[in-house]
Amino acid sequence: MDSAALLNLLGNENRRRILRLLSRKPCYVTEISEYLGVSPKAVIEHLQKLEDAGLVESRTDDQRRKYFHIARNVRLEVNLSPYGFASKSAYPASNGLDMSKCRYLTLDVGTEDEESIDELLGTLEQLERLENELSLAQRWVQGRLCEVLDQISESVGTGSESRIYADLLASIRSEPKGIGTISQDLDAPREVVADLLEAMADRGLVQRTERGWELTESRAEV
Amino acid sequence: MDSAALLNLLGNENRRRILRLLSRKPCYVTEISEYLGVSPKAVIEHLQKLEDAGLVESRTDDQRRKYFHIARNVRLEVNLSPYGFASKSAYPASNGLDMSKCRYLTLDVGTEDEESIDELLGTLEQLERLENELSLAQRWVQGRLCEVLDQISESVGTGSESRIYADLLASIRSEPKGIGTISQDLDAPREVVADLLEAMADRGLVQRTERGWELTESRAEV
Repeated sequence: MDSAALLNLLGNENRRRILRLLSRKPCYVTEISEYLGVSPKAVIEHLQKLEDAGLVESRTDDQRRKYFHIARNVRLEVNLSPYGFASKSAYPASNGLDMSKCRYLTLDVGTEDEESIDELLGTLEQLERLENELSLAQRWVQGRLCEVLDQISESVGTGSESRIYADLLASIRSEPKGIGTISQDLDAPREVVADLLEAMADRGLVQRTERGWELTESRAEV
Repeated sequence: MDSAALLNLLGNENRRRILRLLSRKPCYVTEISEYLGVSPKAVIEHLQKLEDAGLVESRTDDQRRKYFHIARNVRLEVNLSPYGFASKSAYPASNGLDMSKCRYLTLDVGTEDEESIDELLGTLEQLERLENELSLAQRWVQGRLCEVLDQISESVGTGSESRIYADLLASIRSEPKGIGTISQDLDAPREVVADLLEAMADRGLVQRTERGWELTESRAEV
């Protein structure tokens, strides 16, 4: 689902409390209402929104009592920095995901079939530790990204609009490009891209040749 | 900052739009109001909340115009599954983070000092790819965690309360423990833990010895 829709849903404390409760055990409306101290009417409204979004499902038991439970796994990530605000949501990947295609990352964790409870508990522990290590790694990457963008801003001599300069330089780094292609890469209007290119040409960072816009040779040593 | 407070702030679409705008460039109130089509009064209220939370800061320029900008880097992660609902927020780690302490994870990305724009752009590209690989890895881990918890539920023969059973088994896996310690590990009342232990003892999964509660030998082959 859309990360904006997910953030709207998760922005409400009582909806978060309902999700937390249901992730421990399936519940019916009266149970949720009593446990959280929220009126049944409000609980029903929250459940309706969560059900519409596909986060929650219900099942009716033999006594015709309607139990709600978490319908699926969802993961949400938000990064905020002076260089960008990005949120993405995704469903967890299945076992079939080919991690070997990762170029900068190696995971050392068993994927063989476990046969006993003891082995399953061992794998559970490994996965929980790996999850923490991955979070740590992402915090490190985000910190490094900001440092590198700070250094680029400093080298390029720009202030507040440094991210778009960095994206523009990155776009033409591997091959010379025309304004049309660059404006697609950056998702920015042609006129804005043209102005940026002129400004960077004045600083001697980029040049226009018959192949298109490219980094100047001198950009190698700033 | 607290992940609940962050989710409350990010739950509002106009606040997200303000953050997105400020992450591109610092703006003053009238600019934000015109760009987003939101009244200056509402913009000021949103900025106040974002400033109180430390996400946004302001600076007054020579013309006494007050510019707002993103104050710091924040990262938020939310995982929702039938086995749990967890959210955590963190500030990105600095370069000094010791990734070598990671046991299940290896990163292959340069950390040396870059000297030219070209090298900086190269590092930027590597970091952006690594960020994607880490997200992919986290989705894979979350998927695997659910699979393993499903297998444990099946082996233990429990339904909806399987997560607490798995956590209990994991808690006494490495060493026998008393009920007090287990209830601390699980953050659950003693009586609940006592009931769970009795139920699992009946199934032959755990036993009480003079050293405390421990997994039975037979748990190795279920």
